[in-house]
Amino acid sequence: MQQLIVELGSRSYPIFVGSDLLPTLANTLQSSLNQQIFIITNEVVAPLYLEAVKAQLGARDIATFVMPDGEAAKTLTTWSEALDALLATGFARDCTVLALGGGVVGDLAGFVAASFHRGVDFVQMPTTLLSQVDSSVGGKTAVNHPRGKNLIGAFHQPKAVLIDTHFLTSLPSRELSAGLAEVIKYGIMADAEFFAWLEQYMPALMALDQRALTQAIMRSCRCKAEVVSDDEREHGRRALLNLGHTFGHAIEKAQGYGEWLHGEAVAAGMAIACDISVEQGHMLAADYERVLTLLRAANLPTSAPASMDWDEWQQLMLRDKKVQGGKVRFILPRGLGDAVITDKVAESLIVKAVSRQRG
Amino acid sequence: MQQLIVELGSRSYPIFVGSDLLPTLANTLQSSLNQQIFIITNEVVAPLYLEAVKAQLGARDIATFVMPDGEAAKTLTTWSEALDALLATGFARDCTVLALGGGVVGDLAGFVAASFHRGVDFVQMPTTLLSQVDSSVGGKTAVNHPRGKNLIGAFHQPKAVLIDTHFLTSLPSRELSAGLAEVIKYGIMADAEFFAWLEQYMPALMALDQRALTQAIMRSCRCKAEVVSDDEREHGRRALLNLGHTFGHAIEKAQGYGEWLHGEAVAAGMAIACDISVEQGHMLAADYERVLTLLRAANLPTSAPASMDWDEWQQLMLRDKKVQGGKVRFILPRGLGDAVITDKVAESLIVKAVSRQRG
Repeated sequence: MQQLIVELGSRSYPIFVGSDLLPTLANTLQSSLNQQIFIITNEVVAPLYLEAVKAQLGARDIATFVMPDGEAAKTLTTWSEALDALLATGFARDCTVLALGGGVVGDLAGFVAASFHRGVDFVQMPTTLLSQVDSSVGGKTAVNHPRGKNLIGAFHQPKAVLIDTHFLTSLPSRELSAGLAEVIKYGIMADAEFFAWLEQYMPALMALDQRALTQAIMRSCRCKAEVVSDDEREHGRRALLNLGHTFGHAIEKAQGYGEWLHGEAVAAGMAIACDISVEQGHMLAADYERVLTLLRAANLPTSAPASMDWDEWQQLMLRDKKVQGGKVRFILPRGLGDAVITDKVAESLIVKAVSRQRG
Repeated sequence: MQQLIVELGSRSYPIFVGSDLLPTLANTLQSSLNQQIFIITNEVVAPLYLEAVKAQLGARDIATFVMPDGEAAKTLTTWSEALDALLATGFARDCTVLALGGGVVGDLAGFVAASFHRGVDFVQMPTTLLSQVDSSVGGKTAVNHPRGKNLIGAFHQPKAVLIDTHFLTSLPSRELSAGLAEVIKYGIMADAEFFAWLEQYMPALMALDQRALTQAIMRSCRCKAEVVSDDEREHGRRALLNLGHTFGHAIEKAQGYGEWLHGEAVAAGMAIACDISVEQGHMLAADYERVLTLLRAANLPTSAPASMDWDEWQQLMLRDKKVQGGKVRFILPRGLGDAVITDKVAESLIVKAVSRQRG
């Protein structure tokens, strides 16, 4: 098992990464778990892992809320039902909310923890690669609103994150790929050496090699932790983590959430962002080709759906959360391993990049 | 106009107190107001002050949400409706939510600000004495749940608080008295000199003398600000602010919210707490009489309703939020100007104190 600390002063917390951590979780999380534990999980994860987790928690008071699977359940209604269930337990403000599931479960459970008694302890046990390398770290919690994703939520840091690569053995391969999109993102935006490592180890990752997965997750989390420590509430640099996301969100919205997985849309979005960077003269064409090749090696798309026209793109991007003062802010690579936030991009470059099809 | 700063590092903010601040509010709040402002107010306050406030905000983009008056509207439903209205404006994460109203408006608007885009700027313009000396300072936001008050919410500090004593000229006298209960609380729990000042100036306060009100509000806010700076999230000392509240909440619940005003219930609760303190040998009987006399001078009750029996008290107090590990924690004065948090109180003393009637 490896460990890293997200440095946030009095809100610092450990991330534990390894394979087969379930049998020792109570020991690992000891100081982060209270007597009363409210587990939030979903219908897919519960049959696989809930009993094993409960068995490890021993003599604590445990209550469970099982939500439906999928992004469609990440609503104020589900959140409010979870709070009703939590309040029905009689648990006090010294309880722990434990998220056992992917990003949807983590985001919703985190907002439950953030808003119950104005904030109680929260522990993340992410079960998908996407949540292990992204949403479980950094304290963003939220639910969706009919007007957009993650519009209602809070910053609420967990007490601890326990990442068991063993969970990934039950993950559909398409979701594994979607998680790899965010892993590749860290390489592009901040760590060219890690990018090169990924080029070498992508076959091992796709084959669920536990040591390679632990390594990739550690490096991803370390990258995210550094950015989050520096800018917890996204006043500046944290927005870099949204590389590929402005375009990705537009694709997700255009297709209706659920058609494209988030990671797939981000992969296409990153390809678009790199394309623009090449046109601007920042990224080498050869590096851009490396990005496309790596995305393909992870079974990820490298262009947006052909059906989206420019009007649709404009509308969807203007509704993105990264809009400030009416200007869309883009995160663009400056070559491999570096990225910037900018609202100065010629429209013609964007039009060309979003519409380019790459077979 | 007087000013004090709530010291909370990067989240520090000013409180402005004075009479007739409305005509210069844009100037006073300049650095705390963004271009997009979402005003949350209620049906009683809106006809009195909304247009005057909007007129002062000049060329900013303004949208308004008017909620029903009263504690019954402080629900997840109203909160969710306010968020719908805010999202419908298209305002971005760099907007300001402005609360114009009493504690209910402030608590709900604060939770809207806390949860919109994971937290946006928030400004309080409290219009009741209770909210001016208590709920508008300290960052507690919340809505009620059928299972209890303030069970769902967040800590979210405002950017500024503007307290205009002129608002109190339109406040029903019963609500003025309810606010004075919290003012008296600061004297009992932390400031014997202020208590003596209140004994002298209570008639002036009851007569809405603007200078006396400004003085009383400043000293109350300074006391609260000191406690909050020291213990923002109520891990310890901040609980002292709940003097009289364990008993008070029980009275409010027993009577059904709305029968007794919160401040009235707190007044009776403080009398009970002082009674126990006398029995324990901490408060002088003479000081206890001074407390009762001051409460009466503010037209406040000094005992609980005779209809409440001991079984009801026990049940209601065990459901209080201050219960930890199954033990009810009481805030008790140690004489005038000092208080402690304790779970060690002989049941017989409590039984006697809650049932004593004082005409």
